[in-house]
Amino acid sequence: MLGNPAYPTFQIFLALFISALIAGLIMPLWIKFLKKDGIGQQIRADGPQSHLVKAGTPTMGGVIILLSVVITSLVMAKPTMELFLALGAMLATGALGLFDDVTKVVQKRSLGLTPSGKMIGLTLIVVVFFLFAVNACGVEPVIRFPGGFAIDLGILTTALELGGMTVEIPWLYLVFVFLLLAGMSNAVNLTDGLDGLAGGTVMMSMLVMAAICFICHDANLAIFCAACAGGCIGFLWFNAYPAQIFMGDTGSLALGGALAAVAVLTNTEVISLVVGALFIAETLSVMIQVVSFKATGKRVFLMAPIHHHFEKKGWAETKVVIRFWIIAAACGALGLALFFQLG
Amino acid sequence: MLGNPAYPTFQIFLALFISALIAGLIMPLWIKFLKKDGIGQQIRADGPQSHLVKAGTPTMGGVIILLSVVITSLVMAKPTMELFLALGAMLATGALGLFDDVTKVVQKRSLGLTPSGKMIGLTLIVVVFFLFAVNACGVEPVIRFPGGFAIDLGILTTALELGGMTVEIPWLYLVFVFLLLAGMSNAVNLTDGLDGLAGGTVMMSMLVMAAICFICHDANLAIFCAACAGGCIGFLWFNAYPAQIFMGDTGSLALGGALAAVAVLTNTEVISLVVGALFIAETLSVMIQVVSFKATGKRVFLMAPIHHHFEKKGWAETKVVIRFWIIAAACGALGLALFFQLG
Repeated sequence: MLGNPAYPTFQIFLALFISALIAGLIMPLWIKFLKKDGIGQQIRADGPQSHLVKAGTPTMGGVIILLSVVITSLVMAKPTMELFLALGAMLATGALGLFDDVTKVVQKRSLGLTPSGKMIGLTLIVVVFFLFAVNACGVEPVIRFPGGFAIDLGILTTALELGGMTVEIPWLYLVFVFLLLAGMSNAVNLTDGLDGLAGGTVMMSMLVMAAICFICHDANLAIFCAACAGGCIGFLWFNAYPAQIFMGDTGSLALGGALAAVAVLTNTEVISLVVGALFIAETLSVMIQVVSFKATGKRVFLMAPIHHHFEKKGWAETKVVIRFWIIAAACGALGLALFFQLG
Repeated sequence: MLGNPAYPTFQIFLALFISALIAGLIMPLWIKFLKKDGIGQQIRADGPQSHLVKAGTPTMGGVIILLSVVITSLVMAKPTMELFLALGAMLATGALGLFDDVTKVVQKRSLGLTPSGKMIGLTLIVVVFFLFAVNACGVEPVIRFPGGFAIDLGILTTALELGGMTVEIPWLYLVFVFLLLAGMSNAVNLTDGLDGLAGGTVMMSMLVMAAICFICHDANLAIFCAACAGGCIGFLWFNAYPAQIFMGDTGSLALGGALAAVAVLTNTEVISLVVGALFIAETLSVMIQVVSFKATGKRVFLMAPIHHHFEKKGWAETKVVIRFWIIAAACGALGLALFFQLG
């Protein structure tokens, strides 16, 4: 273990720093490797015209973010079950994203994994993560709200005997965890549409989750979150406008999955919705757009997800990104403040 | 006083938020006002060619940053002598900058205040600030280094009797404070050459200084620093590339002055050099360039200050800014870590 675990705050900052360094040092080699093989992003044909110049920029930068998180976590944190579950959720959703990214590259089209394939994958990931979280980490099937209010989702619980062990399945909570993890994973994925947008906003959400984990006395999960934030910083060095690499679905699905996994493991699911409110808003903008168009034939936004709406309104891409960073920071601060009201 | 002072951390976050809100809400009106009167920035003729398109963008956005800091500090902090000295140093250096900005606009040229005029102004500001800091706030003429090492600059002290009061003037420390305050003020001024660069980097430095003030048990100065950071955030909303407004010398001289003033008032001068290392590096790059050119006829950098060097090397302006933000954040974290080693 690196550093002195007697000073957990220092360990957490160190993890942030080391992870940023690892990602920042490996990323240029990765970009060179991808470029040599001509592995560039296919740009969605129905996106803003101005984005077509982005075609050919390498994707799958997320691979290096995940690598730096894994190395940093294993070197700096104690190998607890919580840590492995967070790493597992991140890597599994990342693998799903990687499959998607590779498919796109191989088939030379903008859409990779089929929606049903993605759903089956996410369901499997959530079920495994969920069973361990509830039965090995003692996560309670309760949704806690700021103000001390809580909803017990443990009322529909099945207990199975498996090889002498009792495995509990609180079904309602399973559904909730599925919605949170699959939702957050896809939400970050939707947010990842402008240079630096997903990287910067996830970085800030992860910093807040690191603080929350630390206050929950789980320094190991805090190190994991800090490593995620650090990986994003190393990535941003190259992803800042004009981007030399994108994180791809590998990165966005994994980081969204990691965020939700940490929220479940610390029982701060509702708080995570505030911390990640920007990702939720991006998702809602797509839903509203689709529903409105199907129901009335009219579009609510000039283009969805909402970051494209502001681009169409005339904000420069770089300005949308920095403004969304500011909003994400504000959501993070609000989430942290509400966390102290959980009771 | 707004909020509940029994929870200083909450107060500090609230100050950040309120100041950002004030600056963000007033800034568009200020931009409209300046544009109506045709008050635009004169772009330095010897800067990068690509920056000539910035001509006509309104400057003096710093006025609104200072306004939001003053309002937030007066509403949220206790009126201590330390707070008034910090506010005074900021407003006085800001007034110097404002004079510079207005001169430029009136005379339609890129250089305003003469160097000697600026120096006389800064000297007056430092002397007044210094006398109050040492005699009314009990700031000790000592430079503290991480590791517990300290240099006593009180050996050449004059004691004057003024109307029954003893006024001490530790001359060596006065020189040091002058170099720090005038230096930092000019350093931020030099840094202010790319959209979002000074705003973002000062924001991060001020967040770190807020943490340092808080740990030094001066919640009022912490609120002041948070208000500075918040003002920068509100400003960044409009200053993000492509900038709709610049902070001008009003903003950069004032924020550099405020940073140095807080460092003196908390006796963390050496730490502030680490926190603001990026500003120092920008200044050094100019000095090295000038000295090298005069001595050998050769330039060390493609262009000084160093942010233009990287632009000339082919980094996009937006990428230089985000990378410098990352560096400033790392300097801030390092400074905070070293602060804990002051002993």
